[in-house]
Amino acid sequence: MLLSQYFMPTLKETPSDAQIASHRLMLRAGMIYQTSAGIYGWLPMATRVLENIQRIVREEQDRAGAQEVILPTIQSADLWKQSGRYDAYGQEMLRFKDRHEREILYTPTAEEAITDIAAHHIKSYRDLPKLLYQIQWKFRDEIRPRFGVMRGREFLMKDCYSFDIDYEGALRSYQLMLEAYIKSFIRMGLTAIPVKADPGAIGGNLSQEFHVLASTGESLIYYDQKLDTLLQDPKNIDVDQLMNIYAAEETLHNPKECAVPEAQLKQARGIEVGHIFYFGTKYSEAFNMKVSGPTGNMIIPHMGSYGIGISRLVGAIIEANHDDAGIIWPEGVAPFKVGLISIRTDDEATTKTCRHLYETLQNQGISVLYDDREERPGAKFATMDLMGAPWQLRVGPKGLEKGLIELKNRRTGETQELSIDSALSYLMQQLSH
Amino acid sequence: MLLSQYFMPTLKETPSDAQIASHRLMLRAGMIYQTSAGIYGWLPMATRVLENIQRIVREEQDRAGAQEVILPTIQSADLWKQSGRYDAYGQEMLRFKDRHEREILYTPTAEEAITDIAAHHIKSYRDLPKLLYQIQWKFRDEIRPRFGVMRGREFLMKDCYSFDIDYEGALRSYQLMLEAYIKSFIRMGLTAIPVKADPGAIGGNLSQEFHVLASTGESLIYYDQKLDTLLQDPKNIDVDQLMNIYAAEETLHNPKECAVPEAQLKQARGIEVGHIFYFGTKYSEAFNMKVSGPTGNMIIPHMGSYGIGISRLVGAIIEANHDDAGIIWPEGVAPFKVGLISIRTDDEATTKTCRHLYETLQNQGISVLYDDREERPGAKFATMDLMGAPWQLRVGPKGLEKGLIELKNRRTGETQELSIDSALSYLMQQLSH
Repeated sequence: MLLSQYFMPTLKETPSDAQIASHRLMLRAGMIYQTSAGIYGWLPMATRVLENIQRIVREEQDRAGAQEVILPTIQSADLWKQSGRYDAYGQEMLRFKDRHEREILYTPTAEEAITDIAAHHIKSYRDLPKLLYQIQWKFRDEIRPRFGVMRGREFLMKDCYSFDIDYEGALRSYQLMLEAYIKSFIRMGLTAIPVKADPGAIGGNLSQEFHVLASTGESLIYYDQKLDTLLQDPKNIDVDQLMNIYAAEETLHNPKECAVPEAQLKQARGIEVGHIFYFGTKYSEAFNMKVSGPTGNMIIPHMGSYGIGISRLVGAIIEANHDDAGIIWPEGVAPFKVGLISIRTDDEATTKTCRHLYETLQNQGISVLYDDREERPGAKFATMDLMGAPWQLRVGPKGLEKGLIELKNRRTGETQELSIDSALSYLMQQLSH
Repeated sequence: MLLSQYFMPTLKETPSDAQIASHRLMLRAGMIYQTSAGIYGWLPMATRVLENIQRIVREEQDRAGAQEVILPTIQSADLWKQSGRYDAYGQEMLRFKDRHEREILYTPTAEEAITDIAAHHIKSYRDLPKLLYQIQWKFRDEIRPRFGVMRGREFLMKDCYSFDIDYEGALRSYQLMLEAYIKSFIRMGLTAIPVKADPGAIGGNLSQEFHVLASTGESLIYYDQKLDTLLQDPKNIDVDQLMNIYAAEETLHNPKECAVPEAQLKQARGIEVGHIFYFGTKYSEAFNMKVSGPTGNMIIPHMGSYGIGISRLVGAIIEANHDDAGIIWPEGVAPFKVGLISIRTDDEATTKTCRHLYETLQNQGISVLYDDREERPGAKFATMDLMGAPWQLRVGPKGLEKGLIELKNRRTGETQELSIDSALSYLMQQLSH
């Protein structure tokens, strides 16, 4: 993409009403536009990040055997009356009437809709287990929306629901999702600690929240430092350990009862980006979902819910990956892997080299944002640092006289002077995994 | 995907309340579930088709230089009051209030929102042209929704908006979209005739609707038969000819004024799936959008809108591609390219061959639905014909004794007996383009 043509309306000033880093940086980098309180338009760079997050989540959901569906955003109030949540949900649920005066709502979550569909179609134990997920917009009418996309009213969520014939089946589904979540977050460049949640809920320990480590995080969590190594390699996830290792939010952490030796207990701030939990037969009972068992007996399926805040993750990733100069995208989610800067647009050799680099990288499937604008180099460096491509290539006449261009690692700040071919092969090697 | 695990709840009976073929077939093939009048849940097979359509549309929008954004589904009424459409739109627009009693609505289209964003950020003629598009859910509260996803209330639409400094620029943007649309529809296996629309509108002839040819189509169109050849090859689109060649809906067709010789004039039924049009400065004026020109003069940008009914296309594709036995997916949008049928699941050689075919094709990136269920062959053939994969492979002990399996072309009905390797290489060749 040529920056001269890209719709990335950066701001020079720091927006005064944005309280947290990700909100400020998303506004400064021209990623979002607030259309109403807590409701945002996603501009091209943010849309690319959302797409990348969705791609990772989809691949890992599919790999776990979950099947994608799409449920409508507008649902009948009847569904919610059947589960008893219509009255319980309160003002966060946006309720209204259609032209025929039927009560409808903008759905904040989809247990009711998916159980209704499953109850109509799944009739035999042979049809189970089933894991069904969607990535769809939701609405929660927060009384005081803030923190940009981190606590917006309209938000994009991945929600998955499992149906099994018994607790053991539900436990397997839960573990598949736990593994898929850990893999997804690692691929996004995040350390997301699975923290025990809501110990009073149905299913005992089958309820975990995922908190992305970020110094600006809203919650304080305590966890066994073994987790740091367990969360390294997506190809080697030990689910049993991850279900039993100690990790708790401040409010649930009791130092006296915690069995982890103090030297091994870490303390960090986190941002909640996901939640997985088992809830037994609550909804299958409400929707009269029954399947016939192997002996003709009738079984009420056991269910679980598994959510990831897709749009919230964009904010969380930035909270965990930025510095004073701007965003530092992890490679897995970066809107562009490489930022290419022409230091002198009026120099023919510079332009020719830039075109060569731009085309070669793009032909290899590596996304490039090429700053071809007539601007002074300082402003271009600042813009590229702000938008946060993991790698920068800087090309100018001085270096080219010696046959060299500059490669910068946005995260470490390290720069190297390399020949054009060396820079290309280095980048392709770095970005091939 | 193993059919024994796939959530594809087919119906044996033809649903009595579905009036058109696509609606009946989508219900029978377990693709959709109606949650309220005109509102559907999309089950896994339909979700795959929606994904495939979106992928084609995205690729062609990107290739035309359009940049993807995402606008919120819920918008403030203020935006619509500014354009004057809040009162004009009528009851099809779903209007309600949030918890703070602010007037909001579920957006049926996005001219207002995108012009508001552009007006805030685009300040110079150097920032134009811009083409911005989104693929997002919309809502129109149809008084009598029917025909399944063809006229639903909640629907998925691709909407693109162009901003140019003058009419000539707007014409170029219009032509880029015309070309992108033609390419998209050809890649979906459709013949979509660009029909002149609304000759009274601003911009004269810059308004065309795309009608997919289908014998069950709602509209009757007349067109120059040269179009049949002009719409063959996506690599060779003659935009000038496509803008001027004769094609009109019945209501706008006047045989006395039509210059096309009668022998050259074709008549066919069609389904509208897209609309592109230029509308000048209507919204840029309403939102006070001005950019500075090269001499410091102020310019009010010229705009156009370009829509494709993504969810409607699923129905239209089926209307144009089905027979008595079921759906016949064009390869570009097929949820699975190959349907693999095990004729005898209790035969070891059959199972081994099926696994080999399943894995080999999937490793080549070819999607396969493998019917591994214990069912009689006739029921399996019927299910696979109904779901409509373009190619079927049938494997059973009788053929395997001679080293042969059966390959069926779903569209032509032709079958061939081939060796396993020949069948694989034939399929890979057919599906590689």
